[in-house]
Amino acid sequence: MSLQLVRTLLKHSVELGGFGKVLDKINIVSAGEGQLTAEMKVEEEHTNYMGTLHGGLSATIIDNLSSYALVTYKPNQNRGSSIDLKISYLNSAKVGDEIVITANTVKAGKTLAFLEAKITEKTSGKVIATATHIKFVKD
Amino acid sequence: MSLQLVRTLLKHSVELGGFGKVLDKINIVSAGEGQLTAEMKVEEEHTNYMGTLHGGLSATIIDNLSSYALVTYKPNQNRGSSIDLKISYLNSAKVGDEIVITANTVKAGKTLAFLEAKITEKTSGKVIATATHIKFVKD
Amino acid sequence: MSLQLVRTLLKHSVELGGFGKVLDKINIVSAGEGQLTAEMKVEEEHTNYMGTLHGGLSATIIDNLSSYALVTYKPNQNRGSSIDLKISYLNSAKVGDEIVITANTVKAGKTLAFLEAKITEKTSGKVIATATHIKFVKD
Amino acid sequence: MSLQLVRTLLKHSVELGGFGKVLDKINIVSAGEGQLTAEMKVEEEHTNYMGTLHGGLSATIIDNLSSYALVTYKPNQNRGSSIDLKISYLNSAKVGDEIVITANTVKAGKTLAFLEAKITEKTSGKVIATATHIKFVKD
Repeated sequence: MSLQLVRTLLKHSVELGGFGKVLDKINIVSAGEGQLTAEMKVEEEHTNYMGTLHGGLSATIIDNLSSYALVTYKPNQNRGSSIDLKISYLNSAKVGDEIVITANTVKAGKTLAFLEAKITEKTSGKVIATATHIKFVKD
Repeated sequence: MSLQLVRTLLKHSVELGGFGKVLDKINIVSAGEGQLTAEMKVEEEHTNYMGTLHGGLSATIIDNLSSYALVTYKPNQNRGSSIDLKISYLNSAKVGDEIVITANTVKAGKTLAFLEAKITEKTSGKVIATATHIKFVKD
Repeated sequence: MSLQLVRTLLKHSVELGGFGKVLDKINIVSAGEGQLTAEMKVEEEHTNYMGTLHGGLSATIIDNLSSYALVTYKPNQNRGSSIDLKISYLNSAKVGDEIVITANTVKAGKTLAFLEAKITEKTSGKVIATATHIKFVKD
Repeated sequence: MSLQLVRTLLKHSVELGGFGKVLDKINIVSAGEGQLTAEMKVEEEHTNYMGTLHGGLSATIIDNLSSYALVTYKPNQNRGSSIDLKISYLNSAKVGDEIVITANTVKAGKTLAFLEAKITEKTSGKVIATATHIKFVKD
């Protein structure tokens, strides 16, 4: 149920004509109860001038996917709007690498939601990036 | 001199076939001595599902532009690689808004560089986002 | 007027019997319209095991002083409660150094306030730390 | 072994005459392989003007304890110096609450270490704060 909802949200983002189109290679694997797992193969279109996953794309992926995780936290939970996004870059991912994105709702209160996310390389398990995301969720 | 260098770096990023292509509407206004100013008109392709500037694109713009500011800090300063990027979202920018991006080198040491950046709406002067960016610059 | 208010708030924090007593050597120099400047001489009681200003004390100073800056933003502005505090440590300050703390209100909206702060060494002008502070200010 | 090492480091910090004395009520419960767990009962001396755990003390606790976790990561791992510390405040802790602090080494490379920490209230399991800490560990 949540998985279908998140896949619909992602599809909508990709097809809307906005910046979400850069997420078209993302595959949502599981979603529910405030958590989400997704995967993507790094391609040339995702890279920076060094040929590795662009930090700005990592930020975009985390911005959207942690918001989707939040939506599955409880029925009718809204997506809110971002207050703060912070990403640490621990290792690089290169073309051909399969990355796994996990997102988790740490707290979803009446006005604020605190989310965390991580990108790892699937084969080696190396952590590519860790992130925190704060959203304003007031109705 | 620095202005030309940064414009060349941006052009290269846009044309390389990587994620930098999303920066193709950015116009570098000035650059030098660790600082940079640029502008961009928000278009539909830059927006999230609410029709405002996507936080992931803001992150991408700041990631690249603060790195260009760093390059102008001193001759032969390298661009380094990102350790940490943090963005606060204060206000939204909608389609048609002209945004101004400023970036500044707070410190560029032997192994670490500390940068800050800001996005404002040109007409109203409203702050859209503030950011800090830490890079590893070891040769 | 604002200067007197902030000095009273600081005095109250120091004398309350809580953790604010660690701020007893802070001298507020100016305050008003969302901004504040203060000074402190680094003494042994302020240091970590390396004999330099403890990062936790820097965090404490910034937490309180940026909150005082917020209070001066407009009449009856409340101090709110912290959502997020982030500090970058650029250089160290040693015993005997005179540090200058500046804090600034970037935005104070209906429910959220965004603050920034900086610690510099007075004589050299070297940046010791930069910080951002987000507060929840809902009445 | 690691537990004894960390307890010695903490004792040293408390008795050194510096700011570490504010950590004198911390009890290290376990430590090893880059991880650490500690506990503390919140007392009046730890509070802010609202009578809850002071955000600056939370920062100080996390600064030191995540550094101790790092030291246990591998033999002869040095403590390094802080580059960046970020804390999100999710809930408050009041006098009498027992807090549990956990810290974890996410990556310890040749020059940089990435740590994470969390403070929870022991009885309810409520998350009080989450934090990330980046250190420079070059020999």
